[in-house]
Amino acid sequence: MKKKLGRIPYVYPIPIVLVGANVNGRPNYAEIGDCAVMAVQAALVTVSLHEDHYTTKGIVENGTYSVNVPSTRLLSLADYCGLVSGHMVDKSTLFETFYGELGTAPMAAECPVNLECRVVGTLAVGKRHLFAGEVVEAHVDEEWVSEEGGRRVIADLTRLDPILYALDNRYYSVGKPIGVGYAEGEGLGREGRQGQTGERAARP
Amino acid sequence: MKKKLGRIPYVYPIPIVLVGANVNGRPNYAEIGDCAVMAVQAALVTVSLHEDHYTTKGIVENGTYSVNVPSTRLLSLADYCGLVSGHMVDKSTLFETFYGELGTAPMAAECPVNLECRVVGTLAVGKRHLFAGEVVEAHVDEEWVSEEGGRRVIADLTRLDPILYALDNRYYSVGKPIGVGYAEGEGLGREGRQGQTGERAARP
Repeated sequence: MKKKLGRIPYVYPIPIVLVGANVNGRPNYAEIGDCAVMAVQAALVTVSLHEDHYTTKGIVENGTYSVNVPSTRLLSLADYCGLVSGHMVDKSTLFETFYGELGTAPMAAECPVNLECRVVGTLAVGKRHLFAGEVVEAHVDEEWVSEEGGRRVIADLTRLDPILYALDNRYYSVGKPIGVGYAEGEGLGREGRQGQTGERAARP
Repeated sequence: MKKKLGRIPYVYPIPIVLVGANVNGRPNYAEIGDCAVMAVQAALVTVSLHEDHYTTKGIVENGTYSVNVPSTRLLSLADYCGLVSGHMVDKSTLFETFYGELGTAPMAAECPVNLECRVVGTLAVGKRHLFAGEVVEAHVDEEWVSEEGGRRVIADLTRLDPILYALDNRYYSVGKPIGVGYAEGEGLGREGRQGQTGERAARP
């Protein structure tokens, strides 16, 4: 039996990231959960921010931003980046900032994964601004990187130890591996198997 | 020390959902990871699909879709919905379908959480179509719903047991609660605390 809970966007769970942008010439980091993969093969990600967010100004000015994936040991600092606004507090020294190819997308060295992104599309709905970004480079701490078939990959998510968030206002860690993509459903039939434009685009 | 991994959208981890749409008058369910909260207070979610996806046709036709959150016991069936395309296989009978207020957004009763959505914005980047949807109703299995301060809520994500996915091509379960939102960073300072338009919009 279903109950109606009203207009609540219960997508469970939500990845916690820090969005980096230069605002008035200084790095700023905002904690958000409104971040997603938009495509793998075109390497697109999206972030969504309120029009009044300090970060929004910087993304619009530069046409660039970064997505920084914190690990659970950075939980307090990540939460702090959500508690305080760049309008009020200078967050430029919270992390060791580095820049990549784009030059204007500040990245937090302490986060094990940093994506520098160029804005390639925007969508405004009400006061929310969604920025679609092309990932021009993924920077990853070398301890998490391994080589597979001549390609550098992150082999094990659990070692990376990212932070989840949910609308019960709690943070969570990632649990155990429970299956392999494109394999668990094999027993249910192979007919109609998809190619690279298949339904499940967030897969490499 | 950072290593460059190229153009890979390493957002970790990714929530696995089934996008429901009526295509040619029949329900279809596609497994995707390209789904996110766009805003909480306006109750917006986004899904991203390839222009050739069977599901895309249905969303464009009806201006509606659903987001269905499977639990880990549905892993094989969810994976199957990503393995096979609606172009080739009729997926209309995989789940018990029900409809809500919108009438054209099919929802899978077996999934503990179903969001019926009306398209309020679209963004095309290359061959990818992102659909921003207003959640007009969240339908949740009553066993996961509790009352808090006169409001119906989902109190505990771990009981819901959703599926994560990562670009190491593995599925994961959710781990333990590790903290409370807006609380973990308190010790780092209270100045500049944010209001309802704060940085961390994916919070109620």
